[in-house]
Amino acid sequence: MQTNIGLLGYGTVGEGVARIISLEETLLSQKIGWPLKLSKALVRDLTAPRGFPPPPGLLTTNPFDVVGNPDIQVVVEVMGGIEPARTLILKALEFGQHVVTANKALLATCGKEIFEKAAQTKREVFFEAAVAGAIPVIRTLKEGLAANRIQSVFGILNGTTNYILTSMSQHATSFDTALAEAKSLGYAEADPTMDIEGEDAAHKLVLLTALAYGVLPSLKDIHIEGITKLEPLDFNFAAALGYVIKLLAKAALNPEDGRLEVSLNPAMLPKEHLLSGVTGVMNAVMVRGHASGDIFLSGAGAGMLPTASAVVGDIIEVARLEQTGAQSIRPSLGWHSLKGDAVKPAGDIRSSYYLRFSVEDRPGVLSSLAGAFAKHNISIAQVIQKGVDPLTNTVYLVILTHSAPERDLSHALELAGTLGFFTAKPQLIRVENLN
Amino acid sequence: MQTNIGLLGYGTVGEGVARIISLEETLLSQKIGWPLKLSKALVRDLTAPRGFPPPPGLLTTNPFDVVGNPDIQVVVEVMGGIEPARTLILKALEFGQHVVTANKALLATCGKEIFEKAAQTKREVFFEAAVAGAIPVIRTLKEGLAANRIQSVFGILNGTTNYILTSMSQHATSFDTALAEAKSLGYAEADPTMDIEGEDAAHKLVLLTALAYGVLPSLKDIHIEGITKLEPLDFNFAAALGYVIKLLAKAALNPEDGRLEVSLNPAMLPKEHLLSGVTGVMNAVMVRGHASGDIFLSGAGAGMLPTASAVVGDIIEVARLEQTGAQSIRPSLGWHSLKGDAVKPAGDIRSSYYLRFSVEDRPGVLSSLAGAFAKHNISIAQVIQKGVDPLTNTVYLVILTHSAPERDLSHALELAGTLGFFTAKPQLIRVENLN
Repeated sequence: MQTNIGLLGYGTVGEGVARIISLEETLLSQKIGWPLKLSKALVRDLTAPRGFPPPPGLLTTNPFDVVGNPDIQVVVEVMGGIEPARTLILKALEFGQHVVTANKALLATCGKEIFEKAAQTKREVFFEAAVAGAIPVIRTLKEGLAANRIQSVFGILNGTTNYILTSMSQHATSFDTALAEAKSLGYAEADPTMDIEGEDAAHKLVLLTALAYGVLPSLKDIHIEGITKLEPLDFNFAAALGYVIKLLAKAALNPEDGRLEVSLNPAMLPKEHLLSGVTGVMNAVMVRGHASGDIFLSGAGAGMLPTASAVVGDIIEVARLEQTGAQSIRPSLGWHSLKGDAVKPAGDIRSSYYLRFSVEDRPGVLSSLAGAFAKHNISIAQVIQKGVDPLTNTVYLVILTHSAPERDLSHALELAGTLGFFTAKPQLIRVENLN
Repeated sequence: MQTNIGLLGYGTVGEGVARIISLEETLLSQKIGWPLKLSKALVRDLTAPRGFPPPPGLLTTNPFDVVGNPDIQVVVEVMGGIEPARTLILKALEFGQHVVTANKALLATCGKEIFEKAAQTKREVFFEAAVAGAIPVIRTLKEGLAANRIQSVFGILNGTTNYILTSMSQHATSFDTALAEAKSLGYAEADPTMDIEGEDAAHKLVLLTALAYGVLPSLKDIHIEGITKLEPLDFNFAAALGYVIKLLAKAALNPEDGRLEVSLNPAMLPKEHLLSGVTGVMNAVMVRGHASGDIFLSGAGAGMLPTASAVVGDIIEVARLEQTGAQSIRPSLGWHSLKGDAVKPAGDIRSSYYLRFSVEDRPGVLSSLAGAFAKHNISIAQVIQKGVDPLTNTVYLVILTHSAPERDLSHALELAGTLGFFTAKPQLIRVENLN
């Protein structure tokens, strides 16, 4: 008896999976109780050069050598993208195969369909590698913290942007310079849009929200804001105020109105918090459970072997389920009843804000600005004014607000904009005190 | 259909388990797929006052109302101590019941017997709560990182000592003052010996070693050193050198000789490392896998609800296994073949050292000391000498060494001791750079 694996895709992650399964044969077979074998791998081009050469006969261009192959119990989707991944996963489930996938974009957009199919067919869909790479955050939410009502999940879920923000923070570089450096080190792709505009992290946030709350929000219902507008100046002010700027994913149940707040945006975090110490390409997640308190996890969020570590961890779990003779596997934790409608509109979400205004150096500016804020019930917690830039006659005015709904803040900013003394668009960064 | 639970013990943790099972009935039944019910709880005294009053008929003084009761599928041992816990767990496994336990002392000392019995009877013994409370470190080692060869596990595994060390570090208090404060806050027991001498953390370290390496070391084979000898002075020197002092549990496979190094002692860690940011009663574990890289976990290591969070998480997992119809559960990951003889003797373990000498203020002391070190091949990395204490005519001489086997260091210290200029016993703290 053994468990046979079929790969859909043999790119970076596929190669990592093949490496571990081949090189750690004894370790894996001890852990499972019988051997694990890589049977087939779907690729587009049989003759492309591969870093870890596959054994003869492994590669195929026919998806049905993997999907629906009665000798293959577990289909591992590491091809990425929506189609044909979606169709192949649905077919595999129909054929009674279990699925392990690293595809966050697919699960975030088609998760409902896929998990309903898994429930129907009583097969598992495991996806530890889809969020935060090697960090076992999916398992922690599904199992370790299963006894908890989850109060909030905060995460740094994208290594590329965390590298850029760390570099901007530590070396006072501009966004463009930090991005160029990330590209030269292989931490950012040629087209980094999905990373720097926040969509990649938002996909992962959607999955964490589903695990924590049984709600799979649509991307369009979430406030998603990337890091492209941050300036070195803001990192200086953040440091002076005792904060660090991170691209923060947040899913939280508001205890006052019982509604779900989901957002992905740059945020200022207290510099002594563990999340603030997550630097470079590292990822991290902090889960607050009603019984557990704060559980913090961090580690490598990407890369060939860290991602493969998570994929093979899932494969081992599926293989062990087979080995223990589980007859009808019930997909995890109510995924078949995912709701899609419970997320609070961004305008209703309360937060504290850091605002940086570039204003003309003339009397009455602060009082007019404060007046616009007061009119919309935005209470000011702290003001910093920095000396005039002689070239532009510009003064930087930084305001930290108390907590207020975003809608009120937008109105206040609109009103302030009509007063005519801004020399540049105001900068707005949410402040998250994590307490 | 439902899963019935029997508790052995209804103290702090038992009460937490009862609270969660009663108050989160709907949540738990959704996650499992059928209801979870608390059937019986073994206590010594039926009439003692309880913080969370048990329903009528729950409590019993007869262990066999729980163990061997055919209506109870899962026995939850939260009584602590070795006997009768050991006998009751073995009996429960023989009767075909699964076991969830929080008892680190029992598993660290009788784990081999218990896991062999579980293997024979094909029942599960889950013990997430036995190490680091609510932090899912057991699951992470068993499942999340199952694809990895584990290179090292470092941990801060005792909240009492971490509270004391944090207090000594941040407020320059003495050990006795910090301990008294920990007692007054309920973070230390009336008799804190198990905590401050390191035995509690060593029990947890033994379990982590077993999970990571399949080796259950005997406590007597491990270098165990508590925190009672640390002085405020050492915290000052540590800070000046860029270090933080933590009670560090370590299990590591030495890549050069392939042998296992297991130790529990105060250690200086680089102050910017995530482990150094773990303050107060928090616990943390860092696991280094060959594929995953460093995975860091932290959170509450003790307390009623955090511990119960871990216990109920295990109960949910066992109940789900039952619900999915697993016919013959194979205890995890080779536990039935635990080895007990592979740990390297402490004298052979290499480390860097911080040494603080109190010496008379006279010429030639440093050169004689350096000579004693050179004679035993201990290479000095850094020396700090601090001005004379006028009352005692004592000079503090701090030496950081390069890596050396502990045996050589002991010999050097013995030789130095014969030179006759020490005014107090030298202080020795290992330095762990975690790279």
